[in-house]
Amino acid sequence: MEFIIKGGTIITSTSSYAADVYVKDGKIAAIGKNLPDDGIKIIDASGKYILPGAIDAHTHLEFPFNGTMSADDYFAGTRAAACGGVTTVFDFVTQKKGQGIREAVKPRNDLCAPKACVDYSFHVALTDLTDDVLEEFSTAADAGLPSYKLFMVYKKDGLMMNDADIYKALQRSKETGTLIAVHAENPDVIDLNIDKFKKEGKLSPWYHYLSRPEAVEAEADIRAIHWAKTLDAPLYIVHLANAQGMQAVKDAVNEGYEIYAETCPQYLNFTSDVYKREDGRNFVCSPPIKGKESQIALWQGIEEGYIDTVATDHCPFKQEQKDWGKDDFTKIPNGCMGVENLYPYMLSQANKGIISFQKAVELCAENPARIFGCTEKGAVEVGKDADIAIYDPNIDFTITNAKMHSDCDYTIWEGTKLQGYITATYVRGQQVFKDGKFIGEAGFGKFIKCQPRPIA
Amino acid sequence: MEFIIKGGTIITSTSSYAADVYVKDGKIAAIGKNLPDDGIKIIDASGKYILPGAIDAHTHLEFPFNGTMSADDYFAGTRAAACGGVTTVFDFVTQKKGQGIREAVKPRNDLCAPKACVDYSFHVALTDLTDDVLEEFSTAADAGLPSYKLFMVYKKDGLMMNDADIYKALQRSKETGTLIAVHAENPDVIDLNIDKFKKEGKLSPWYHYLSRPEAVEAEADIRAIHWAKTLDAPLYIVHLANAQGMQAVKDAVNEGYEIYAETCPQYLNFTSDVYKREDGRNFVCSPPIKGKESQIALWQGIEEGYIDTVATDHCPFKQEQKDWGKDDFTKIPNGCMGVENLYPYMLSQANKGIISFQKAVELCAENPARIFGCTEKGAVEVGKDADIAIYDPNIDFTITNAKMHSDCDYTIWEGTKLQGYITATYVRGQQVFKDGKFIGEAGFGKFIKCQPRPIA
Amino acid sequence: MEFIIKGGTIITSTSSYAADVYVKDGKIAAIGKNLPDDGIKIIDASGKYILPGAIDAHTHLEFPFNGTMSADDYFAGTRAAACGGVTTVFDFVTQKKGQGIREAVKPRNDLCAPKACVDYSFHVALTDLTDDVLEEFSTAADAGLPSYKLFMVYKKDGLMMNDADIYKALQRSKETGTLIAVHAENPDVIDLNIDKFKKEGKLSPWYHYLSRPEAVEAEADIRAIHWAKTLDAPLYIVHLANAQGMQAVKDAVNEGYEIYAETCPQYLNFTSDVYKREDGRNFVCSPPIKGKESQIALWQGIEEGYIDTVATDHCPFKQEQKDWGKDDFTKIPNGCMGVENLYPYMLSQANKGIISFQKAVELCAENPARIFGCTEKGAVEVGKDADIAIYDPNIDFTITNAKMHSDCDYTIWEGTKLQGYITATYVRGQQVFKDGKFIGEAGFGKFIKCQPRPIA
Amino acid sequence: MEFIIKGGTIITSTSSYAADVYVKDGKIAAIGKNLPDDGIKIIDASGKYILPGAIDAHTHLEFPFNGTMSADDYFAGTRAAACGGVTTVFDFVTQKKGQGIREAVKPRNDLCAPKACVDYSFHVALTDLTDDVLEEFSTAADAGLPSYKLFMVYKKDGLMMNDADIYKALQRSKETGTLIAVHAENPDVIDLNIDKFKKEGKLSPWYHYLSRPEAVEAEADIRAIHWAKTLDAPLYIVHLANAQGMQAVKDAVNEGYEIYAETCPQYLNFTSDVYKREDGRNFVCSPPIKGKESQIALWQGIEEGYIDTVATDHCPFKQEQKDWGKDDFTKIPNGCMGVENLYPYMLSQANKGIISFQKAVELCAENPARIFGCTEKGAVEVGKDADIAIYDPNIDFTITNAKMHSDCDYTIWEGTKLQGYITATYVRGQQVFKDGKFIGEAGFGKFIKCQPRPIA
Repeated sequence: MEFIIKGGTIITSTSSYAADVYVKDGKIAAIGKNLPDDGIKIIDASGKYILPGAIDAHTHLEFPFNGTMSADDYFAGTRAAACGGVTTVFDFVTQKKGQGIREAVKPRNDLCAPKACVDYSFHVALTDLTDDVLEEFSTAADAGLPSYKLFMVYKKDGLMMNDADIYKALQRSKETGTLIAVHAENPDVIDLNIDKFKKEGKLSPWYHYLSRPEAVEAEADIRAIHWAKTLDAPLYIVHLANAQGMQAVKDAVNEGYEIYAETCPQYLNFTSDVYKREDGRNFVCSPPIKGKESQIALWQGIEEGYIDTVATDHCPFKQEQKDWGKDDFTKIPNGCMGVENLYPYMLSQANKGIISFQKAVELCAENPARIFGCTEKGAVEVGKDADIAIYDPNIDFTITNAKMHSDCDYTIWEGTKLQGYITATYVRGQQVFKDGKFIGEAGFGKFIKCQPRPIA
Repeated sequence: MEFIIKGGTIITSTSSYAADVYVKDGKIAAIGKNLPDDGIKIIDASGKYILPGAIDAHTHLEFPFNGTMSADDYFAGTRAAACGGVTTVFDFVTQKKGQGIREAVKPRNDLCAPKACVDYSFHVALTDLTDDVLEEFSTAADAGLPSYKLFMVYKKDGLMMNDADIYKALQRSKETGTLIAVHAENPDVIDLNIDKFKKEGKLSPWYHYLSRPEAVEAEADIRAIHWAKTLDAPLYIVHLANAQGMQAVKDAVNEGYEIYAETCPQYLNFTSDVYKREDGRNFVCSPPIKGKESQIALWQGIEEGYIDTVATDHCPFKQEQKDWGKDDFTKIPNGCMGVENLYPYMLSQANKGIISFQKAVELCAENPARIFGCTEKGAVEVGKDADIAIYDPNIDFTITNAKMHSDCDYTIWEGTKLQGYITATYVRGQQVFKDGKFIGEAGFGKFIKCQPRPIA
Repeated sequence: MEFIIKGGTIITSTSSYAADVYVKDGKIAAIGKNLPDDGIKIIDASGKYILPGAIDAHTHLEFPFNGTMSADDYFAGTRAAACGGVTTVFDFVTQKKGQGIREAVKPRNDLCAPKACVDYSFHVALTDLTDDVLEEFSTAADAGLPSYKLFMVYKKDGLMMNDADIYKALQRSKETGTLIAVHAENPDVIDLNIDKFKKEGKLSPWYHYLSRPEAVEAEADIRAIHWAKTLDAPLYIVHLANAQGMQAVKDAVNEGYEIYAETCPQYLNFTSDVYKREDGRNFVCSPPIKGKESQIALWQGIEEGYIDTVATDHCPFKQEQKDWGKDDFTKIPNGCMGVENLYPYMLSQANKGIISFQKAVELCAENPARIFGCTEKGAVEVGKDADIAIYDPNIDFTITNAKMHSDCDYTIWEGTKLQGYITATYVRGQQVFKDGKFIGEAGFGKFIKCQPRPIA
Repeated sequence: MEFIIKGGTIITSTSSYAADVYVKDGKIAAIGKNLPDDGIKIIDASGKYILPGAIDAHTHLEFPFNGTMSADDYFAGTRAAACGGVTTVFDFVTQKKGQGIREAVKPRNDLCAPKACVDYSFHVALTDLTDDVLEEFSTAADAGLPSYKLFMVYKKDGLMMNDADIYKALQRSKETGTLIAVHAENPDVIDLNIDKFKKEGKLSPWYHYLSRPEAVEAEADIRAIHWAKTLDAPLYIVHLANAQGMQAVKDAVNEGYEIYAETCPQYLNFTSDVYKREDGRNFVCSPPIKGKESQIALWQGIEEGYIDTVATDHCPFKQEQKDWGKDDFTKIPNGCMGVENLYPYMLSQANKGIISFQKAVELCAENPARIFGCTEKGAVEVGKDADIAIYDPNIDFTITNAKMHSDCDYTIWEGTKLQGYITATYVRGQQVFKDGKFIGEAGFGKFIKCQPRPIA
């Protein structure tokens, strides 16, 4: 298999330049001016941008949640990914009590492998941090699973890890080249607020936001960062959504600590006002979308380099599921869609001049690859996997659910106008998306072994 | 009853000046140059300083702790206070589950009243923050009990209050003019450390320190301050002992928040090296004494005005009691003596030029009076209670247990050399200490009703 | 001479309490409850506050400026002071080239002494910093003249001192216990702006402000602070008027440096909008009044303790003089009135709850006394000079020029409504103001020898 | 002309990967795995790194200084550059009074063009900032000259620009897409110090340092940054050498301002102790090399990304010239060599693990290209000029003057041990350095037109 993409402009995190890209055997084999093309299939990318496929570092596909299941199974979810220029997803596996790390991953991989349309890897959400599990960090990392998430909330669900767990995990991560991520919110004050609102009969989606406001998320951000600083261990904060937490990241980074922050497109594009809308329940996710001040702080964090990645926390629920909580926000399944919108949205922001295309590529491809050890991914560079998205900056595109490839029956992005859109996606040289249509196949996606970090 | 103190120099938090002090009916009735003195008893204070009696905002007398009792009952403890120039103590009452605030205080007051040699009031350590107790904040405050402490540690002992409790208490304190204080340490990481050291057989007092190191205290300081900032409620941090917490206080104060910090003489005079001494167990208290860097930060906090009070956490245990943990730091009763050493130590530091005498008076008398609403106390000022300490700056004094008036059979301050010492103490005009001898009587001390804070 | 003030409430920087004040031989001889008053004149202060007389640390009386003279001579200026509760003024003497310090002061003192109605001292504005003058710092300080000002502007007028001068002066001040003050603005950028506006025909008073905007003042604040920090020498910034300079002071103080900031009532009460008024030229002073953000920052600086003094820069010019620049802001004599408004304005702000009365007393009396070594002044305290203002908090007072005691024929404060007003002023026990009338006499005021600072 | 470099590892600012580089007609025409190489010359780079040629953004060749001339003319200087892997130099042109920008450059270009062995451009040091010159910013920028330097020192030499000049230049730079650089030191305090040392007979090179110590440089850094922030204009600080200035850059960048900092290898490798050496005069440059604390701060600035470029300020003087100031530091011609040492030194630091190779390439090639608009330079990327250095990481190299290619007769780098060294340099595909030998030719180097910045 070989082909040449001609006439396009390559975008990297530091540069953009016109050149041909020669793909052979699933790899980027050459980049050049006027590469010889006799007898090779030519893809015309005139007037278009050649981007690395995005890496969505945060999805919940086929995800069991409070007795129900997220709307997209591994097929539908990775199909949507492909159609949004995402060539690798990191899905979350939740460790069950008593399970080992690889033991927890195995059944999920068995489920995913035959359905995956793009490449994938796993983050493991640890809920039972036994000595054996800590011990397993090193062998699991060698097996390509070096990143773990700890919930600082969901006490009642038995998912919450306390400060001692965070401390132990961070400590062990340094010895093993693994990376600890946290879902940072304060459980006790959330419960206090929910109890209060329930008593007062305040049950609309707006109270979902008010029960988990800015300071409640910020507290946990600050605490997690404190332990990371104490141990001088790297830390990755998933779905950061508030200004004060952003400031805490900034301060710690400026003191020289290795703190990574991920935010999501829903936090960048919407504000908490959506919870006052008729369809407010559809936006219910945790942490909730915050106020304008936080939205501004996140964009500033992107501009100044304190946000490292944008990922989606893709976890849609169908309208029927969302409706369970129509009259009681505590019954709404938490989660929003995004895997198909991430890259088009960020690139549209670049196209509008809000950020640079370089920055979009850095946040959605290069940084997640670097941070999570996907050494073969994340850049249009000779030797990397030919994970490529072709982007036409001159297309006007309005998001509507009919055009989306998720199994969900609505989208929170409905009506959003984008400048420019992706016209083709390639995974290891195989085209999976073409002019609005999914052309991939289930099972083509491969599990990606991630590299552990160097041990200091 | 009336007398005149002549020839001395009055010290206030902002000034020092030579003047006579006329005391009548337990009050400071006049201050002047050459006050008329016909037929009035004259106290000669030539060459001496006339200071307000100190207010020790933190004592644990007759304190039940893990099945034993602190060494000083209310008589012995207030006798020691009197001999150290302390004219008011704030003792801690621990609420039992189910008790109301005044209900908790009553038996302690019954115990204290007949034994007290100096005036006293109570802080109430809340351990059961029911709606009734929150409701009682206002009436308890009107009854002179407007200050409450929450433990952020001692989970296993049932004393710990979680973040929701802290949040509720701070919220309610704003409505009621009360003040929330916290004992700030992180319980989970302490337990993690202790378990680890136990397994490793590391049981000397040095591991008491290592199980509760700087960052463990700092985390809780930062968290408590976060909630206080979130609610814009005042907060008082008891026995602050670490540099990072000091910085957090400084930052919050500089942002305009009302955060008070108390430290103790043991944190100012010693460092964690004491835990390596033969008698290290005698220094075991929580939070433990920290390293040199923290000691320096605390003195700097005093100089720059971010430490508001110095109090003692006076809670001595006899040698026999301390010996229970000779071979296992987890069995050492926590607590040190200090009520008799506080003022002489701080004044000696002033005498040596480390701080000003004004600062010593501010930290040990004026500020605790102001912060806790002791409107009749804390300054040598016309109209205030005649709570006075006479200080001779020219005496050399070496602390030795034989000269102390506690019931404890040793002192951690043994051998400490002081410049200057207190020669007389008056409580409401009644002399209780004279030239090294206690001359007060049990039951003279009165309960002081504190004023609630103005409600914003 | 002796009398007793009865029934009032004494205000100090840390306290307020009801007590009688007994004045004898110009001193505060006693403070007490129910002081014996047989045969002594009694002043009834029921319902009133007993305050220390204010110290205006910044006046320009009988001040020659660009060929004209400020409107108030030493008599009129100190008369106005007396009627505003000001009992001491610090007037500025400008050293002429070649003069020594005391040589410069002598003719001004000769002029002032027979006219002064309140006590006074001098700051010396140095314009010729020869080795002899530097040498004279110590002897001038011993003679009661330990404070010097350097202009960082007025290059063309030969007044400007460059960075080498500032450096030398600060260096020498440390050896001599003297204090360097600066008028901080950047001369080159001011000239650049003025030239530009002149060319463009922009000559209204609004362009006075725009030629010396926030950043132009801030630059010089930052530079002066830099040298003070470099040499670890104390520094006093006169008439600070901008937010960025305020921040620089705050930062330096928080780093532990001894930086004092003075602001003026005109910067606290007005904003640069006044320069758009019909009578904008009357508000022309340098530095000009700044925008709202700076006004807010100054009040915040007061609240947080980074503003040490409020003084007036009193330098009124009559309407006729101000009119010279009606059509050209560069021809407007620079200066505003304030000596009679300072204390009533700040106390009215206290009465309205903006600041505390303690803070007003600290800023206007205690701090200038402490900073400039007026050891006999600044507090209602036994042993101090009986410099007292009696304040009635229940009077409504609207400032109008007819009620003012300056020789100027208008006031920028016209129409300002105050809550509370001063009803009596005493200088060393002698009443000089009574119920709206000046009752002092020229020549009663004495030169006050200031104490040099302790040499580190 | 075409050739292929095979077997090497390409280093960019974000990546390193094995690939062949195909050079054709002076450009990088392709990068790929196993590029077809039939009949093309092959360069074997097995085990070596393929780097972009360095851009030395700061040289003074053939530079007239105080009546003498720097030791390297354009031939010798660019020869040394070539031998150090530098493929472009930015030389400084000093505008004479009355000259226009291009008028000033023309004679220097005439001098340079026939001698240049590598590519070159010019920064113009403006000394006469007339309205005409300000006007010319735009046309000069279009002619490829968009960067200007202002001296904040050298008052007596007529080179100094004052704050009004800086202000005007920054203001104009925003309108024209040009970039203002400053040489930041405080002239008045330097003169003060020099006069003092002269009087005291302190004339050894150590007093060169003491006359321009840390705070003297920092003041000017802070001031220049202040004006840049005020105008929100970009600013480039040349040869930053002190910790406090580094902090000021960091603070401003963290506030979102576009402030660039350049430092030099001499500030990174030496400390002020060199001025105490026998040959201290050879290290005399301005600003002088600072103390250890500054050296550490500069390395930290590199690590944290606040140093943008490392350039040399290459301005050697022969021993005979340096000796003029043997007994009087004020007579020592200011300047040190470095153009041949820059890249080998920084790469050696990378090889030792102090920084990454990516960082070395970023500082020495990518960033200067980006900041100064050298769009064809600075990266091994398809389409760029084939300016390439081949680096062997396994060579041990000790710097000694015999091996250097400057005309100077000593080097301050004598004896410095490096790990790894450059083995070949190509300028636009033409090899100019090979295995220790210069093989280029005078006149091959071309003037590079720089692109102005986008105008906001």
